[in-house]
Amino acid sequence: MTVALPKLALFGVGLIGGSVALALKQAGAVGEVVGVGRSTANLEDAIKLGIIDRIAADAADAVRDADVVLLAVPVGQMAGIMQTIAPHLAAHAIVTDAGSTKQDVAALMQQHLGAHLAYCVPAHPIAGAELSGASAARADLYQSRNLVLTPLAATHPDAIARVTAMWQACGANISRMSAAEHDAIFAAVSHLPHLLAFALVDMIAQRDNADQLFGFAASGFRDFTRIAGSSPEMWRDIALANQPALLAELDAYQAQLDKLREALANLDSAALNQVFSNAQQARQNWAARITD
Amino acid sequence: MTVALPKLALFGVGLIGGSVALALKQAGAVGEVVGVGRSTANLEDAIKLGIIDRIAADAADAVRDADVVLLAVPVGQMAGIMQTIAPHLAAHAIVTDAGSTKQDVAALMQQHLGAHLAYCVPAHPIAGAELSGASAARADLYQSRNLVLTPLAATHPDAIARVTAMWQACGANISRMSAAEHDAIFAAVSHLPHLLAFALVDMIAQRDNADQLFGFAASGFRDFTRIAGSSPEMWRDIALANQPALLAELDAYQAQLDKLREALANLDSAALNQVFSNAQQARQNWAARITD
Repeated sequence: MTVALPKLALFGVGLIGGSVALALKQAGAVGEVVGVGRSTANLEDAIKLGIIDRIAADAADAVRDADVVLLAVPVGQMAGIMQTIAPHLAAHAIVTDAGSTKQDVAALMQQHLGAHLAYCVPAHPIAGAELSGASAARADLYQSRNLVLTPLAATHPDAIARVTAMWQACGANISRMSAAEHDAIFAAVSHLPHLLAFALVDMIAQRDNADQLFGFAASGFRDFTRIAGSSPEMWRDIALANQPALLAELDAYQAQLDKLREALANLDSAALNQVFSNAQQARQNWAARITD
Repeated sequence: MTVALPKLALFGVGLIGGSVALALKQAGAVGEVVGVGRSTANLEDAIKLGIIDRIAADAADAVRDADVVLLAVPVGQMAGIMQTIAPHLAAHAIVTDAGSTKQDVAALMQQHLGAHLAYCVPAHPIAGAELSGASAARADLYQSRNLVLTPLAATHPDAIARVTAMWQACGANISRMSAAEHDAIFAAVSHLPHLLAFALVDMIAQRDNADQLFGFAASGFRDFTRIAGSSPEMWRDIALANQPALLAELDAYQAQLDKLREALANLDSAALNQVFSNAQQARQNWAARITD
């Protein structure tokens, strides 16, 4: 029996990359998975958990004859990896990623993989990333989740089809758009909310009576601020990588708060009610569409 | 056997009031519970569910010989109820409430129950209120939850002790503070987050590509915006009732966003990292202290 993907080179064997490997193995859609990572203990865990088949001797060994090279590492590590693997890639080897921002990844590919752009496919799986490490990986992480592909102008249609098939084997729902459109959408629905949650918790933590304030915070606060428990380094990097779109969303949000402040200052019951009612209706409509 | 509270008059037999009645009955801490409400169907449900023993003929009947009168209705309905019951209260009958803002309730008591202030005890149980109606009531809703008492200057110590005992029988942890301090605390940890969540969802819902944006919103957005699914009328009333404290918090938050905007505009990685890291640490410390 031949599999769609005889060899996957996985850079970064944590929740995101490890879950791809598990899903592909469960689907019978991958042959050998070779892992590369900075923590040997984590890679050894990944072997025990059946996520990878072996640990690569080095990056060149990992990508030799690989059909797909998946960069499931923070964007800050990608340039170095791209430089290292570029001379060793097979002619039709796909290079794809799982980063939360896409214009920056596309720029890195253009800078470091210029001879290989036809097989570069930036991608973003939309799945929670609160846990980390190989032990957090789950075969069903991407089941019914969104996966956004942002192909380069130079990307070959065959490369897009192969990455699409790989993620479909993981159970994901595939969308395609430009990297700029991707980054604008996620600035609004992901990056801005993270910044807002970090901002609120930091503000309260700075208060002289922070302990008292946290002591009376309840379930609404808990859910609103859950994403403020996310990795500060990761979200700093996302904010910086997507700075123009995030600034635009932050400005729009501050204008919205200015409007609400004016309504509140004027005790304008109708204006407050309009914003709150519209939000509640939209939130309920959205919640009815999602499954979890 | 005598119970601590032979007769409870319950105005508003929904999640909040109904859960008090169920908890007191389970604890054997109440005799008769007489319900008053605008929906006869809901009151009949409450009898079937063992929440109330009977439906009051009218407000005067409800409070006649009642030991405690609990106003578990929106603050907007309280003035009318207070006016109606004032002539019928027994001399030592407690009047207490379960509203989310306390300076406004205190002012209403002073306005309408001036002859009875020694037995007026404003209170705020901190428990989720996403569901409504008698059928949502649960005997364990207040177990290990915070309950804040904000006695008036005129409130008699015996009245405070009796309300404390009632809520302790429900399993709540009792705190006492001034109404002003209460309203400042909850402006920060509850009212502001609600306003921020409503603001974000309304902003996104107004966009031409709202469907696309909501289509890519994931679990972080879901949790951040959960409280935007709350009752717009209730939160409009809370915002208006607590306007000065909420304006102060909104101004502080906008100043915090101004600071973050500047850091982002300057690509100031260290400044972003400081806010995000401080928030993450504080959020994790807080999450370790709470049980759910």
